[in-house]
Amino acid sequence: MEKMTQKAPDEFEFLRGITAKYGLTKIGDDCAILPKDGDSDLVITADLLVQNIDFKLEWTSAEMLGHKALAVSLSDIAATGASSRYALLSIAVSQGFWASDLLDGFYEGWHKLAKIHGVELVGGDLSRIDEGLVIDSVVIGEVPKGKAVRRSGAKPGDGIYVSDNLGSAAAGLRLLERGYRMSETTDRKVADLLKAQLAPVPRADLGVRLREADLATSMVDLSDGLSSDLAHICDASGVGARIFADRIPIGPELGSLFTDSDELLALALNGGEDFELLFTASSEKKSSPELDGLFNIGEITANVGVIEIISDKGAEVLPRKGYRHF
Amino acid sequence: MEKMTQKAPDEFEFLRGITAKYGLTKIGDDCAILPKDGDSDLVITADLLVQNIDFKLEWTSAEMLGHKALAVSLSDIAATGASSRYALLSIAVSQGFWASDLLDGFYEGWHKLAKIHGVELVGGDLSRIDEGLVIDSVVIGEVPKGKAVRRSGAKPGDGIYVSDNLGSAAAGLRLLERGYRMSETTDRKVADLLKAQLAPVPRADLGVRLREADLATSMVDLSDGLSSDLAHICDASGVGARIFADRIPIGPELGSLFTDSDELLALALNGGEDFELLFTASSEKKSSPELDGLFNIGEITANVGVIEIISDKGAEVLPRKGYRHF
Repeated sequence: MEKMTQKAPDEFEFLRGITAKYGLTKIGDDCAILPKDGDSDLVITADLLVQNIDFKLEWTSAEMLGHKALAVSLSDIAATGASSRYALLSIAVSQGFWASDLLDGFYEGWHKLAKIHGVELVGGDLSRIDEGLVIDSVVIGEVPKGKAVRRSGAKPGDGIYVSDNLGSAAAGLRLLERGYRMSETTDRKVADLLKAQLAPVPRADLGVRLREADLATSMVDLSDGLSSDLAHICDASGVGARIFADRIPIGPELGSLFTDSDELLALALNGGEDFELLFTASSEKKSSPELDGLFNIGEITANVGVIEIISDKGAEVLPRKGYRHF
Repeated sequence: MEKMTQKAPDEFEFLRGITAKYGLTKIGDDCAILPKDGDSDLVITADLLVQNIDFKLEWTSAEMLGHKALAVSLSDIAATGASSRYALLSIAVSQGFWASDLLDGFYEGWHKLAKIHGVELVGGDLSRIDEGLVIDSVVIGEVPKGKAVRRSGAKPGDGIYVSDNLGSAAAGLRLLERGYRMSETTDRKVADLLKAQLAPVPRADLGVRLREADLATSMVDLSDGLSSDLAHICDASGVGARIFADRIPIGPELGSLFTDSDELLALALNGGEDFELLFTASSEKKSSPELDGLFNIGEITANVGVIEIISDKGAEVLPRKGYRHF
């Protein structure tokens, strides 16, 4: 019999395979939720940042890289409604970078953000690597027992919300690719988009507030991109979704620099790395003051696994086009 | 004024600098110790394994690499007297390795060891990297409140103990460098040394037993090498040490393959990666049955920061020659 040529699985398929094969029960959310004591659970997340894949040193400063390494993990913790407490940093670094002041700047940027969020560095590891820089950022947070928000709680009829403008980080990446850099003299609109990519602001307070108000039935942070991250909620919750193109918030600086409306929408739908929160809330709570200033972009449906987008072209099925490593 | 050319700090100096600069209170032990509940503390450790620095794929199998990635972290947890519970695995992997069955074997070896130790994989991350393989292994353990064994509790007069033969892992590394490989037909003595290097056995039960018996006043696992790891205990405890060359246990398979006695002793003193436990115990407890079968290699002294080795050549100061990345 002829051997079939098999395509390697994508990362999500691979992780589903490992999870099923070894009977893992705590995999599949942004964070693992572990029992702490009678009052609290711990949530823990790990994020790899690999040079030339997740960042380029020609594009960022050591300080901004340190900031981002922590920010991406704080964002995961925020998406569960937990408060970040402790962190570990494992860094593999080449001899050349070791002899430079790269790590000093990195730790400076990291600690500046850590101080704002009351996070303490408690461990990690340092290793040499032949070339480049690899960072693994681990953050541990705490949340009242049983209250961590998961991906899996969305119900048909729930409203779908995002916390702020989308696409800015992806637009910043495009600008970096076109040669724009962050400096004292960078045009403010350009700088805002570059900053969205290089030094994102995790929505830590908002995540806690939404959990305290018992508003979010499901939540993730927008790291892969709306089309992908909303699919994660739909998969985990066993539901579908309908979103409206004209309700997706896009910042004015983005609109003034990218004028093609299809490109703009694609940046917002598939861009990723905005690190805004995407969550669902029961329609009964749609008048809650906690939702003021947030953006209702659609609703959860019973059409399992299907995400529709409604625009002036009518209704279309939204393909998952978020970032994948493999 | 002429600018001084400064040598980059070694990794221990660098970490001491970061710890002091940012007022970190939980850095410096094998594991960070975090409060859990009224009865327990959590201990957490992270270990990077970088291709060509910490392992070579030409020398090991994917299964043995998975085993070792977990074993090194279980060993850190054991050195605090805690029981390992949860793990996170972050893996940066090249496109080529992704398309191979490397990760399947890796997870297979990892889970086989995890099952023995009751450890559950709860999270981590996967990323692409231009070339090679980088693994960050994070393990979380649990220990009765206030009972985690640290590096800092050694007192002058305490006996110094190691849990088993030293130098085998370093000898295995030498054999790999000379072209020996693990196979069905490998000579048993050679295979034992290769296995000590490629698939070390963490002393998890012993670490817990020593803590339960309230025996260890300080403890570390032998990852960097005896001369370096004993210095870590002396630094943290503010003491010195005297060890006896003829009491350092060396396995018969090692003695039969490496016949130069200076080389043998150097392997045992500086080799590293044996993942045996090194601990101190009060002299009042030297007859404890829990110490049966373990090796008393010397004693803690008040000669702060100085480690002496006594051999038939007399007393000499032992330099720190364990493994350093930088």
